This record gives sequence, C-alpha cells and structure tokens, in this order.
Amino acid sequence: MTLTPEQQTEIEEARAETRQTLRPVAPALEEVLYRAIPVLDQGFVRVVDYMGDDAAVVQSARVSYGRGTKSLRNDEGLIRYLLRHRHTTPFEMCEIKFHVKLPIFVARQWIRHRTANVNEYSARYSILDREFYTPAPEHLAAQSTANRQGRGDVLEGEEAAEVLAWLRDDAEQAFGHYEAMLNELPDGQPRDPNRQGLARELARMTLPLSTYTQWYWKIDLHNLLHFLSLRADSHAQYEIRAYADAMLEVVKRWVPVTYQAFQDYAVGGAQLSAAGLAVVKRLLAGEEVVQEGSGLSPREWRELMSLLGRE
Amino acid sequence: MTLTPEQQTEIEEARAETRQTLRPVAPALEEVLYRAIPVLDQGFVRVVDYMGDDAAVVQSARVSYGRGTKSLRNDEGLIRYLLRHRHTTPFEMCEIKFHVKLPIFVARQWIRHRTANVNEYSARYSILDREFYTPAPEHLAAQSTANRQGRGDVLEGEEAAEVLAWLRDDAEQAFGHYEAMLNELPDGQPRDPNRQGLARELARMTLPLSTYTQWYWKIDLHNLLHFLSLRADSHAQYEIRAYADAMLEVVKRWVPVTYQAFQDYAVGGAQLSAAGLAVVKRLLAGEEVVQEGSGLSPREWRELMSLLGRE
Amino acid sequence: MTLTPEQQTEIEEARAETRQTLRPVAPALEEVLYRAIPVLDQGFVRVVDYMGDDAAVVQSARVSYGRGTKSLRNDEGLIRYLLRHRHTTPFEMCEIKFHVKLPIFVARQWIRHRTANVNEYSARYSILDREFYTPAPEHLAAQSTANRQGRGDVLEGEEAAEVLAWLRDDAEQAFGHYEAMLNELPDGQPRDPNRQGLARELARMTLPLSTYTQWYWKIDLHNLLHFLSLRADSHAQYEIRAYADAMLEVVKRWVPVTYQAFQDYAVGGAQLSAAGLAVVKRLLAGEEVVQEGSGLSPREWRELMSLLGRE
Amino acid sequence: MTLTPEQQTEIEEARAETRQTLRPVAPALEEVLYRAIPVLDQGFVRVVDYMGDDAAVVQSARVSYGRGTKSLRNDEGLIRYLLRHRHTTPFEMCEIKFHVKLPIFVARQWIRHRTANVNEYSARYSILDREFYTPAPEHLAAQSTANRQGRGDVLEGEEAAEVLAWLRDDAEQAFGHYEAMLNELPDGQPRDPNRQGLARELARMTLPLSTYTQWYWKIDLHNLLHFLSLRADSHAQYEIRAYADAMLEVVKRWVPVTYQAFQDYAVGGAQLSAAGLAVVKRLLAGEEVVQEGSGLSPREWRELMSLLGRE
Repeated sequence: MTLTPEQQTEIEEARAETRQTLRPVAPALEEVLYRAIPVLDQGFVRVVDYMGDDAAVVQSARVSYGRGTKSLRNDEGLIRYLLRHRHTTPFEMCEIKFHVKLPIFVARQWIRHRTANVNEYSARYSILDREFYTPAPEHLAAQSTANRQGRGDVLEGEEAAEVLAWLRDDAEQAFGHYEAMLNELPDGQPRDPNRQGLARELARMTLPLSTYTQWYWKIDLHNLLHFLSLRADSHAQYEIRAYADAMLEVVKRWVPVTYQAFQDYAVGGAQLSAAGLAVVKRLLAGEEVVQEGSGLSPREWRELMSLLGRE
Repeated sequence: MTLTPEQQTEIEEARAETRQTLRPVAPALEEVLYRAIPVLDQGFVRVVDYMGDDAAVVQSARVSYGRGTKSLRNDEGLIRYLLRHRHTTPFEMCEIKFHVKLPIFVARQWIRHRTANVNEYSARYSILDREFYTPAPEHLAAQSTANRQGRGDVLEGEEAAEVLAWLRDDAEQAFGHYEAMLNELPDGQPRDPNRQGLARELARMTLPLSTYTQWYWKIDLHNLLHFLSLRADSHAQYEIRAYADAMLEVVKRWVPVTYQAFQDYAVGGAQLSAAGLAVVKRLLAGEEVVQEGSGLSPREWRELMSLLGRE
Repeated sequence: MTLTPEQQTEIEEARAETRQTLRPVAPALEEVLYRAIPVLDQGFVRVVDYMGDDAAVVQSARVSYGRGTKSLRNDEGLIRYLLRHRHTTPFEMCEIKFHVKLPIFVARQWIRHRTANVNEYSARYSILDREFYTPAPEHLAAQSTANRQGRGDVLEGEEAAEVLAWLRDDAEQAFGHYEAMLNELPDGQPRDPNRQGLARELARMTLPLSTYTQWYWKIDLHNLLHFLSLRADSHAQYEIRAYADAMLEVVKRWVPVTYQAFQDYAVGGAQLSAAGLAVVKRLLAGEEVVQEGSGLSPREWRELMSLLGRE
Repeated sequence: MTLTPEQQTEIEEARAETRQTLRPVAPALEEVLYRAIPVLDQGFVRVVDYMGDDAAVVQSARVSYGRGTKSLRNDEGLIRYLLRHRHTTPFEMCEIKFHVKLPIFVARQWIRHRTANVNEYSARYSILDREFYTPAPEHLAAQSTANRQGRGDVLEGEEAAEVLAWLRDDAEQAFGHYEAMLNELPDGQPRDPNRQGLARELARMTLPLSTYTQWYWKIDLHNLLHFLSLRADSHAQYEIRAYADAMLEVVKRWVPVTYQAFQDYAVGGAQLSAAGLAVVKRLLAGEEVVQEGSGLSPREWRELMSLLGRE
C-alpha cells in the first residue's frame, strides 16, 4: 500500500483531535478510524465516518413494532430475529463511509451495486499516479476448466514469469505514453515546449484496467451486508474479495452483534427450494431417495447432495 | 406537541451523556440533538443522529477533482460552485436521521420521496394513540378558485366552527370505535370478556387520515435539499411545509455554508427556457416584445412576465 | 368492484384496436390486457402495459455471460439457474405497468417498496368518490393471541355485526362531512351558496383509512417477484395478499417459465443457517440431536423443527 | 461500427416478424427497432424494446390529477406543463431498453447514473474481442488551458501522429498479450499445449480503457432525459456526447411531443439565482448595474453576463 506522506499526515492530524458528541459512538471502530487497512499490493480501505451502532438498529425496530416488541427480550435477540427473518429496514438506519483505493477492474465490479453514494477521483480533471496492480505469484491462477467464471491451479515456472512480465510491461509502457501524451511536469509546465499535450480525458484511455483509482463510498448497513454476502463469497473474484474481507473486519468493530448474526445466518447457510426441502424430509424419514422422482433436475440434485455432504 | 413523559426522559438521558469521538462534529446541531421541535398541534421533528458537515462535502469533492481543485480557493467558494452547477454527489456524503411525528395524510405525501430510509410505527403490531391533527383556525382555508391545488381565504364564522366540529367529531367517534373493536385494556386484558377483539391490522382502517403516526427517516443531504426545495415551497400544502420549515432550521445548524448556498441558488431562483432567455435578451436590448412572436405560449408568457415583475 | 361506465368504455375501446409491432409479445397477457381483475369488495388490478417476456430474460443473461453461456443448454434451464442462484439483473429487463384501485391502508403498506414508479390519484386536486372497503364476514378476524401481527378466529354473532356496523357508519359519516365541507356539486357549483367550501387538501383528512384510492404502478420483474414473495406470503395481511395473488396470475400469463421457477424456488422454500444446516446433517447421519448443544436458540430450534415437520 | 454477421442476421430476423399487440405503439420508433446506430469508430446504440409513448405520459398525469386536469386542454399542453414545472413522475411511466457497444472509459462515466438496469458483457466468463477506440484526427484535442475538464485545439502534425500511434500500439500490444495469456483458440483448444492459460478474470486487467464492451441498458423516460441533459451537453466529454446525441434522435422518434418540450425547456435554458434574477430586473428597469453591489461574486457575475450575452 502506498499512502502519500501528505495522506499519512492528514490521517495522523485527523486522529489527533478528539471531539465531544452526544451521538452514539462505536469505540472499537474509533480505534481504527481514518487508518488505512492495506489490501492487494497498493490498495487500501479506510473508514472516514460512520453513523449509528447496534443500538440504533434496535431503536428503529422498536419504533416500527412499538409496544409490540416489549415481549422481545433483549437487544441481541431482537437483532438476530430481524436478520433471520429479513426485516431489513432497521439495518438501513446505520451508515458508513469508506475511502478506498482499488484497481479499475475491481471498481467496475463494485460499482454494479447501485445503492451507495460514490465520489471517484476524476481522470478528466486530474492526472493519475503511476500505480497499477500486479498479482502476487500465489494469485496468478489458471482458468478453471470446471467453471467458466473461476480460477484453477496457480501458474508456475516460465508461464508465470512471462505473464507477470507482460502485465508489468504493458502497464509501464502505457503509463510512459500517458505521461508523454499529457506533456505536463508536476509544476504544470510543459515537458516539451513544442507539444500541446493531449487532453487528460483522452490520454487516460491508454491506461490498463489494472490502474489504481480511488473513491469515497458511503452505504447503509443493510446494503453493505448484502454487498459483503456477494463479495466476501468464495465465488467472488479474489481481488474484490480481499476488499470485502477487510470490510468485514470493520463491520465486526462497528456493530459486533449484527456481525455475529450475519456470520450465523447469512454466511455458511443455504436456501432450500420446496422440492429440496421435501427431499430432506423424506431422507430424515429414512426413505431411500434418488434423483429420479425427486422433483429435482440432475444439476439441482448434485447441488443438494453437495450441500448435505452426501456426495 | 405531546411527548410522553417516557420519551421526554429518554431525551434527557440521551443528552446527559457526552462521548468522545474522532469524527467530525457539528456543534450547533449537537445543541439541539434529540430535542423535539414542535410542528402543528401535536407533531414534532427531532434529529437523532447525523454524519458529516460542510467540510465533508468539500473533502469528497476534492477526492473527485483531485489536484484539479487546487485552483478552487476556499471551501465556501467550492460549496457554492458545486451547488450552483448541480454537482450533487458530494452532498450525498452527509447523512441525517430524524424522528418525526406527523398526520397520516402528510406522511402519504412525504413517502413519495423514495430516496430515504424509513421505519414507521406499525399499526399491525401496535395500538395507535388517540392523537389526530386539528387545523388551527387560521389554517382552515377555503378551496382556491384560481388554483385546483391551492387554498383560498380562511373560512370564517359558522362554517369554520362547523368544519372544526366535524373534523373533531369524526376523529373522536372513529377512535372510540377503534378502541371498542380492539377490546384491549392498557395492560393487555380484554375490556369486555365476552368479546374477542378485532385484529389490529383491521381495526385501524376506521381511523381518519388526520391520525398521527411516527417514523424514523434517514436521508442524505442532497436528497434532503431536494425534498426541502419541493416541500418548503409556497406550492406545498401548509401542513407538510411546516415540517420542511423546521427541518430547514436544522440544516442551518448542521451545514451553515451549504444552507446559505441553498438559500441563494435554489430558493427564490427560477429556471428560464431557451425561448424565455431569448425574450429577456431582446428586452435588455431595448426591443418592444409581445407574446405573439415571442416563441412562448400565452401561459408561458404570463409566467415569465410575472417572474420579471412586469405584469 | 366498481368500474365507472366511462372506465369500462375506455377498456373496451383500448381492446378494440390491434396494432402491429416488432417487439416481443406475451400472447396470454394480451388476452387480459386492460381488463380489471376484481380484488376485495370494490378494488381491482389491471395490466395497462408491459415490456419483455421470458425470452428477454434469457437474452440479457446471454449478453452478460457472452460465449460463456453456450454450455447452458436451453432457455428454461438458464432461467431456472438464474433464479436459483439469485442472478437478479436479467429479470430487471422486463417491466410491467398496473392500474390498481385499493384501500389507503393497503396503499400505505404497498408504497414501502421503493423500487417502483407511482402516479397516485391526488386528493389535493380532485375529489374522492364515496368508496371504502368493508371486509367480508369471513375476513373479520380477531387479533391473534399467539402472534402480535396476525389474525385469529373469525368474529361471530353480535360482535361481528357491531364491528361491521361501526366500520360502515364511521365511513359513511366521514364521507357525508367530507362532501358537506367541500360544498361542491358535481358540476362545480356550490351546494350551499353561503358557504365557501373547505380546501380539498384539508377536507380529505377526515376520511378513513378504508377509503379507496388508485394509482398507476410500474415495476420491473425482479422487483415485482420480490414484492410478491413478501406480499403473497401467509404472513402478509389478507387485504394486500389478495392483490398479490391476483398479480401472481398475471405473472403466470406474462412469463410462464419464470413464474414456474419462482414457485419452485422462492415459494415454499426455506433459508437454513449454518447451524441449522449442521443440525440437518447430524440428523441425516442418524444422530440424536436436541436443542441444547445444537447451536440454535430455543426459538430457532422450534422454527427448524417446524420446518422439518418434526414437531 | 462492427456488427458481427451473426448479430446482423439476428437483427434482420427480429425485424422480419411482425406481431399483433393491444399495447400502445410508437410507429416511428418501430422503423428503427433493433437496428444499430453507429457511434464512434466501432460502437453503436440500438433500441431493443420500449414501453409507452407520449399518450402514456398524459394518461398517468390524468390519473394523478383526476378530474382536476379537465381544464388542461390538450395532451401537448399538458406534457409541456408537466416538463416545465418538473412534475416528473408521469415521465417515469415510459421505459426503453438499449443495446450499447461502447469503450470502457465511456462506460465508466455512464454507469454513474444509478437509476437504470444494466446487463454488461462479462470478461470474467467470456473473452473480449480485439476492439478498441481510436479517436478520429479531428477529435484528438489538446488539454484546455482555460478549463481543467475541457479540450482545447486539435493536435496537429507530428504530435498528432505520435499520439495516435501510441494509442494504437499500446492497445495492440495489450490485446496480443491478453490472447497469449489466455492461451485459448476460438474452438476452446489451447494455443500452446505447454501452457495452462491465465484466468480470464485476471488476463483482462492488461487491456486498455479504450477497449469496447457492451451492455443492455434499460431506463425510464424521466431518468433518460436527465441523463441526456447532462451527457448531450457541451460540458460532457465528446465520446459520451456522441452516444447521447444518437439517443436524442431515438427519443424524437419515440415521444415527439416530450422531445420538443425537452428541447424548449431543458436545452438552452438556464437557472437564475435569486440574486441573478434581481440583477436582471434592475437591468430591465434601466439601471446601471455593476458586479460590486450586485450580490454576485465576480465568478457568478461573469457567468450571468455571459448568459445574457453582455460580455
């Protein structure tokens, strides 16, 4: 991770000044506020603000259900009940704002989640730094042969070396041309007084998708959990999963009760279809059940047996 | 405004405990945090949490424009520039959460704004209090004859008295039947042991649209300003405008620079069409211009002349 | 259901004119286009436009996965795969527009779904008809004693009669006062020349929540299925479920393959937590499992045993 | 524009089959349905489905305002009134679906509009074709010296030639490495049997931002007009404006009355602040007004004088 000294100083300054507030505070999250959590070779995630905590979820739920929630014992029980039964609106009452530095191909997956607010660094206005992602050798995976979307074994030997060299060379060459086309020195003076310099909004198009960008990204807790359930999943591309994993640790510090309920219900759980549930009941009753006549297609049958550990 | 003693105690307790935070703080907003601002006869608005301040808007804008904003002098100038040129995303980076008590017919207008998070008191789970809105005599207006959607003169004399009596009587009678149909004492025991009591989700249907409900409502600053530009406007119904006016005062405490820019650009301004702008230019050049040949329809011409104070 | 003769004529006229199009057409949906499906005592749902069909879902999915979907055999298999694995965006590519007449207390639940477009009849501009919902005797249910949110047995005898009378009387009285306060004859002349007439936006507040309103409601297929999974569910209030059931029949005509997949996977299925799944595996292995030590709370244990039919 | 023969055949087949429908039809739009409108060197926009027309806007507005709109004469007048006064919801009742082929750096700007549905070609699943954008010589503009975000004069001579060569060479080299890293022949066989082939989701990262992608993009008319007001504007980057201009022609065919109102009110118009409006009034009254004392900052003054053509 490369934080500029300027950024590092800003973080220390921001952390130096404690203020008084009447708002709820999440102490474990305050411990890491503003600090960058390294992700990939040059990226990071850091929390720059937040609103609410586990108690805010409870408070909103109790407004909804009014006196009706008196019978719902304690706060933890209520949060677990809400998450289990997909009563999602109370979780929308907490909000968090991240500053993220990430490769553009990761940003393109990320932005598909529309229920968030974003301010991204603009390469129309400003010049991008010479920073691009290069996978660590252990993440340089072959195409999966079983799965169109997945990774197989790690590349080895000469092929790995050659791939890494190509990724680096393409990016270095593109950044070299980018800077030459812009024709602008750090102080704004032209590098070559005989050139006009290509518009920034055009020059950027030669940069690779591995180039790092950054943005402020703000989202509510419900939508964050939905994002994490998709992106911290084993089917997600490793590079975005690395960010999701870092954010999961943030959630743990911010709303520990919600985090635990999320682990218990959303992670490692499974959705059964009506037909799948019927098969489970027949199995529990001691019946011999096979795919034929089960109401499941061969593919669904394999998915269910795999889920039940009966392959 | 009727806050229950329980609610009043909660507010005082919440205000009694000061906490430490590294987050940005809006001191003038902290002064009124949790406190209820009375609206209408029994309603209120109160801020229960917030995130960000004027500086957060600036910070997000500077991430977007990167080094490009160095030339944009100070923070105030940048905020005014952003608002004037409708660069809205930096204003989405601040968030605020209100607790609102409001009549149902106001809630029905309010909820049409979809870009907010809501947790409303549920009359399926819980029993509604006997609280309904009765307009003050000075707000008991006749239907406008000029404008389908507006109010005319204030009703007077016998008609006013009769209208007020009907509004009250209908509500009192409906609440009486509501409670009788529910057949439930405050302690949960039946009022009449020979009755079963109608389901809450059904009994509520007899209550009038003037009945008070309450909700938590969370929204970002950009969408809040959009809401206020529509609802603090003279074309809005008085009863929702009363809430919007109270929230405007909150915005002033929270983000004073943004508030001032909003007043200057969004309030009291006007949108000119291309044809309207052409008319203004011709007038400024000293031409005599009339509706015919102006490119404006008679209705548009009247609207423009009224805007320019030339009626 | 009360369609005005004017509305009935409009429907017949709209159905009389067949047009040519190159767009996809859903023949079974065309059969009922514009026609009102009765719901409750005076409400209805009718489809006024639609876009796309099952093939449009497939087409969008194939753009996303490109050549990668060649291995995915037929369209039906692909749709079922998408729905089972929650690949939701292809279902967003179909859109439908309904005209709905519904009681206001139902409209208030319905509008909580924010991912739709709505144009509702405005009681600020226009006068509401004297139409309100009265439950049929078999839907006049007592409050559930087991469930805060549910219904119990049907009310009987004198209590039922009295409740029905109150619901009707409150509504009739309110509409009488509403019309008197407005002081406006159908032709726009005053009923009583000595009265000014209260503004429409105020007079409406005396009407009960059982009053019928109407709106145009437009939504994409993914969000419609989400709405239906919540509102065609046994936990939903009967009155909104009646609308959801009518819309399910529409979905069956519109996108029959998607409808069947929705029935198979979303309806009658269940979500298992990681701990719940572990219990199922232990049971299948022939272990004796009890709540204690199962990793489930007593409430969760009861929910799981009920799901597996082992109570 | 490069449509594959396969795509060209699909289009002709789709256009060959006329179907019967009771839905509204926009005849001028049917004329170009499915056909690709060329944009940039290899991109296109084509309409693949639509719902509604000008009459659908009117119909929805009349439901909202009920009998209240009887006084609003004809449909054209109503549409113009709605657009002028920003009554936006009736325009949300029309929907359109595009298939777009566009460079990734354009797609990144485009996707910032969140109120649309998108299915993009996935480079995790599938292999991207060797297609990238190269600006025509007349669009190869220098960075504006006046405006951080804009373009200045067109590059000439040797600099232009060199820039074009770099853009092409970087892309060609990257695609060459992309294909070598994938190690996959069109029939799925390995190019080099001694290599494993890098995962698609990784190999793509070396491709430049000028690479073409494609997506299905579905949006309602209100949000489309908002998109076009920003992206068909002179401040938008030329490359996205080219797409917006093509879509404007589509809007003209689809909803000609709305299109004309949009041209008259949204294009070429301007927003005046309260202070700006006061200056206009003083000028119209024959006063001599200068920036000092005008209530406008120097920058705002310049913007106003420029708008009024008084520079």
